[in-house]
Amino acid sequence: MKINLGVVGAGIASRELHLPALRKLSDLFTVVAVNSRTRKKAEEFAGIVGGDVRVFDSYEEMLSSDSVDAVVLAVPISLNPKMIIAARRANKPVICEKPVAASVKEAVPLLRLPGSSPVYIAENYRHIEVYEKAAELLKEGRIGIPLAFSWLKWVDFGQDNKYVQTKWRQTPEHVGGFISDGGVHDVAALRKTLGDVEEVSGFTKKSLDYLGAENCVVFNMTLENGVIGNYSVVYGAASPLNRFEIVGTDGLMLVDKDGATIEIFAADREKIFVNKTDGFIEEFRDFYNVVEGEKNSLGTVGEALLDLATIEAGLVSAVEKRVVAVDSLLEES
Amino acid sequence: MKINLGVVGAGIASRELHLPALRKLSDLFTVVAVNSRTRKKAEEFAGIVGGDVRVFDSYEEMLSSDSVDAVVLAVPISLNPKMIIAARRANKPVICEKPVAASVKEAVPLLRLPGSSPVYIAENYRHIEVYEKAAELLKEGRIGIPLAFSWLKWVDFGQDNKYVQTKWRQTPEHVGGFISDGGVHDVAALRKTLGDVEEVSGFTKKSLDYLGAENCVVFNMTLENGVIGNYSVVYGAASPLNRFEIVGTDGLMLVDKDGATIEIFAADREKIFVNKTDGFIEEFRDFYNVVEGEKNSLGTVGEALLDLATIEAGLVSAVEKRVVAVDSLLEES
Repeated sequence: MKINLGVVGAGIASRELHLPALRKLSDLFTVVAVNSRTRKKAEEFAGIVGGDVRVFDSYEEMLSSDSVDAVVLAVPISLNPKMIIAARRANKPVICEKPVAASVKEAVPLLRLPGSSPVYIAENYRHIEVYEKAAELLKEGRIGIPLAFSWLKWVDFGQDNKYVQTKWRQTPEHVGGFISDGGVHDVAALRKTLGDVEEVSGFTKKSLDYLGAENCVVFNMTLENGVIGNYSVVYGAASPLNRFEIVGTDGLMLVDKDGATIEIFAADREKIFVNKTDGFIEEFRDFYNVVEGEKNSLGTVGEALLDLATIEAGLVSAVEKRVVAVDSLLEES
Repeated sequence: MKINLGVVGAGIASRELHLPALRKLSDLFTVVAVNSRTRKKAEEFAGIVGGDVRVFDSYEEMLSSDSVDAVVLAVPISLNPKMIIAARRANKPVICEKPVAASVKEAVPLLRLPGSSPVYIAENYRHIEVYEKAAELLKEGRIGIPLAFSWLKWVDFGQDNKYVQTKWRQTPEHVGGFISDGGVHDVAALRKTLGDVEEVSGFTKKSLDYLGAENCVVFNMTLENGVIGNYSVVYGAASPLNRFEIVGTDGLMLVDKDGATIEIFAADREKIFVNKTDGFIEEFRDFYNVVEGEKNSLGTVGEALLDLATIEAGLVSAVEKRVVAVDSLLEES
């Protein structure tokens, strides 16, 4: 049965990430409603979708409408928890953009939600095949014993970048600004590939005012499997780089999301081509299945919370100059 | 005037690093004596040098010989301080291999030495032109404002590697084993390129027994100029890598010691070829000048101590799970 979707938020994510995916899943979803803080943006979005799309002036009104089966939240991060709770109270299944909340503290109430309708935190990286395949190859011992990882991400966001131009990103209420906004993706991928993160220690720096928060971070991590590694991010770099590599006793593995390839430099050099999965399509497909009664394993609040807590642990570590265990943030909350 | 050198230690450094350099500096130095814990090794070394090389049974005896003008120390790291002190007491100029001591604590007495004869701690990386040139280009603003650095070093030392086979390296008395033995070089280069290190925090791991000590480290650093960065090292990796990059607002800089090149990825991509300086020749040339009365700026105990303290700060940080200021190690000692 097709799900009639109400979309909350008519920004970049709704227009450029979700809508193309939903169009490809027209056998599963129909966008029937939209709400945005600015009515004009909602109307524009309805126009882009085409057909019969109702514009709601408030998301509460949308939630109480019988014409809407489920809602998509693509709103400023800090609004996620209260909107998820509202959806749950209205007994409407909800799929919500990552990060799950502005901080771990604000996400924790979501672990004890009223009601029972499906809540799905969308993390497209958890649906990208390359990380699952990398995990499989590591388990097969293709680079021997994994010893350490390095993930370097230089992001060339200038002042005119569309994300930088988003008002709520310029004065972020979510921890670390772009560092958590983008970072939860990478942590999701890292966890999928190598497993959960135990401890983080790091330094951060805010060197470019237009980026709103810390724009340089160096985070060291210890993983539950004993591997140690570093995740370094710079926003405002001149040229982009996104290099995730794992060093082992018998080889080096380079995991490239964009190319959907895994390169193994071992006794024999090998380049493995993986399906280029569109994480947005896959997350919506998974959400559909969850609404239809399948178990939610990739889109739980718990998973999203661990991604966020890993990044927040690094941010806290930099302020408090100590090693921060990821779990400790969940306990304190 | 030519300096008659006595060599203490007939291991890899003396045979493979120093001797080739000294041969090219035959207008400055003559090797006239050798001492080693094993007389056979000393005799072999004398044979390799050729000519009239006296074999001493003890370094004390060598130090008191009038035929020796100055000594070269290339001995197990933990022996450096007492041998430097002995050379100073004998009023013999001494050039000593890095790291200056097995730990900062053991190096500190060298800051208050008896006598006044030149003491030169050899650090070949401080004489490699590529780092000096990189510093110059950074100051010129060639990559805009430097934001962060990343230095990844994967070292493919297997069990049969000649350094791994060295007995005193198998059960190291010096902090961190290969991590300090090799790491002081990189810190010297980093300091030359970007300036002094203020704080270090890191994780370490000992995953391969044959390497004697911690073989994986991830060290985050804050520099005095405000740049943050990461230095990650894995010994026992399948394939080698040594990639030092600096990210700036207007470009990326890749500093390659082995190729003696600096690549700048900015508006225009540029590859700068620098002279391939042999750090060993240059350090001996500098030592000669210091013995002849020039100021010692690149081979002081103080410089070597900062290199070692930076690595030790990372090692201490990993044990004590806190950020360690490099200076604090010097104060505690």
